[in-house]
Amino acid sequence: MCPFCSGREKQTPPEVMAVRTGDTQPDGPGWKVRVVPNKYPAFGPADGVLEESGHGHFHHTMNAIGVHEVLVSSPNHQHDLGDLPLSQVRYVVDTMVERYKANKTLSCVEYLLLIHNHGRDAGASLEHPHSQLFGFPLVPSAVADEIEGMARYRSEWGKCAFCHMIEIEQADAIRMVFENDGFATFAPFASSVPFETWIVPKHHSARFEEMTEINRAEFAEALKDLTSRISRGLNDPPFNFYIHTGPTKAAPALDYHWHLELVPKLTIAAGFELGSHISINVRAPEDAAEFLRSSLSGPDTGKSASPGCAQ
Amino acid sequence: MCPFCSGREKQTPPEVMAVRTGDTQPDGPGWKVRVVPNKYPAFGPADGVLEESGHGHFHHTMNAIGVHEVLVSSPNHQHDLGDLPLSQVRYVVDTMVERYKANKTLSCVEYLLLIHNHGRDAGASLEHPHSQLFGFPLVPSAVADEIEGMARYRSEWGKCAFCHMIEIEQADAIRMVFENDGFATFAPFASSVPFETWIVPKHHSARFEEMTEINRAEFAEALKDLTSRISRGLNDPPFNFYIHTGPTKAAPALDYHWHLELVPKLTIAAGFELGSHISINVRAPEDAAEFLRSSLSGPDTGKSASPGCAQ
Repeated sequence: MCPFCSGREKQTPPEVMAVRTGDTQPDGPGWKVRVVPNKYPAFGPADGVLEESGHGHFHHTMNAIGVHEVLVSSPNHQHDLGDLPLSQVRYVVDTMVERYKANKTLSCVEYLLLIHNHGRDAGASLEHPHSQLFGFPLVPSAVADEIEGMARYRSEWGKCAFCHMIEIEQADAIRMVFENDGFATFAPFASSVPFETWIVPKHHSARFEEMTEINRAEFAEALKDLTSRISRGLNDPPFNFYIHTGPTKAAPALDYHWHLELVPKLTIAAGFELGSHISINVRAPEDAAEFLRSSLSGPDTGKSASPGCAQ
Repeated sequence: MCPFCSGREKQTPPEVMAVRTGDTQPDGPGWKVRVVPNKYPAFGPADGVLEESGHGHFHHTMNAIGVHEVLVSSPNHQHDLGDLPLSQVRYVVDTMVERYKANKTLSCVEYLLLIHNHGRDAGASLEHPHSQLFGFPLVPSAVADEIEGMARYRSEWGKCAFCHMIEIEQADAIRMVFENDGFATFAPFASSVPFETWIVPKHHSARFEEMTEINRAEFAEALKDLTSRISRGLNDPPFNFYIHTGPTKAAPALDYHWHLELVPKLTIAAGFELGSHISINVRAPEDAAEFLRSSLSGPDTGKSASPGCAQ
């Protein structure tokens, strides 16, 4: 009784957008990608007024106004991005960009975070493949820290840290997984978890939603490629990915470099990781990249050799 | 064939310390708490020389010299700290302090992190209850950030943030779980995960290992109390705890306030948490504390009502 399958459109809140064929009607079958408000939103409403309070100066709170949308990847209940046709992944990417743009101007939204949970152990409560867009009234530290670090890097070394990273990864080659004209996919140096892999635009760009038509086609190709390699190579593991992009209200000239980070859930963050914020990664990114480079070379049997990496 | 059970002492590396009865011999039965080097150490050797290198200025590496010890909580394979007699928990606490002191002076060790993983889903690869002590050549950001934040707090407000936190928790009372003369146990305001609970010394003290005899007895009582409440109240969930204390080489006058943080593993950190470093906690700490306050009031049946908090 999956509420995201075609024919069950009434089980979700009314759609806010869909890619549809012919003259099909909203909240009925005939869609390719469908976007609905999350039935149990983490943030909302979008027209709420920010209320901040504190216990003296110690306990600071704000209400969780914002948006929380679900982007259903396709009517297909089984196939996630790696198994869908490239044309369908392109619809997903176009939808992501459109929803970014639609929510970006909301006064309550300081940041839009697009994420994808695949598999129950990665936190996907519904199996039917979908992404989620969270809009909320602050810039998360995960992104603020990157922006600050990149500013420090530029002041010290005179260039964008991510642009430089791509140069180094291309020269080193050992952590590179896939490239097309617009994007580089690689296992980052000193990655946090086994098979962590990033997709980074080759041309300096602060904002995901400013991709050109050509960029979107290239990004869809890179996204399908990576999720295919992960799913086929590692026997359909649980994984998460998320997109780090410029905050919605940042100045147009913001010096940032958007990218996607994918983290398979093959190991457990335990006391050491939680207590230190240091990761013990049992699979070197150089090994992971070598494995992923060859993971599409065999036939797609739906099964594969164990990577031997779960700790 | 548990290598931590009494009678299997030869299956571990030779013990570095044990609390023993009578005239029993090292690496034989008769111990109450036993400390051995980890057979598969994350850090070592302790007499290694730190070697740092980099790829230009971009990829910085150092070798993982240090120590990694296992503290077996008792000969009992089934009972973790919450179910052991208080006298046994006191032996564990004394052993933790002694191993801290023994490893603190190693030249390669900048930080000693004491952690405890309970249950497979919390990363415990061996079921027999044990803690682990990691010593390594850097101060982890989890602690460095706290030290920095506390310095900022003192310069702005003229007092220790943790001392102030205890005052507020005592006044608010709603997040308090347990108190004795030396320690306060409470669910911290805006906690990260359901039933996250901290044990904080009431008297300002930068270093775990500087506890007096009386403090150790009080800490053992608080630690047994909290782990009992978690295990009985939540039906023996997986959990991690870790101790944040002053770095080994910090100046004697370091302004810090050591404490223990316990985090049950009832939910999954998914794309939102990983991508933002913001936590969505489905159980308010005020509710969690109320539940934990009453969790020892019934008989210990080994089972309990579901807290209804797993997301």
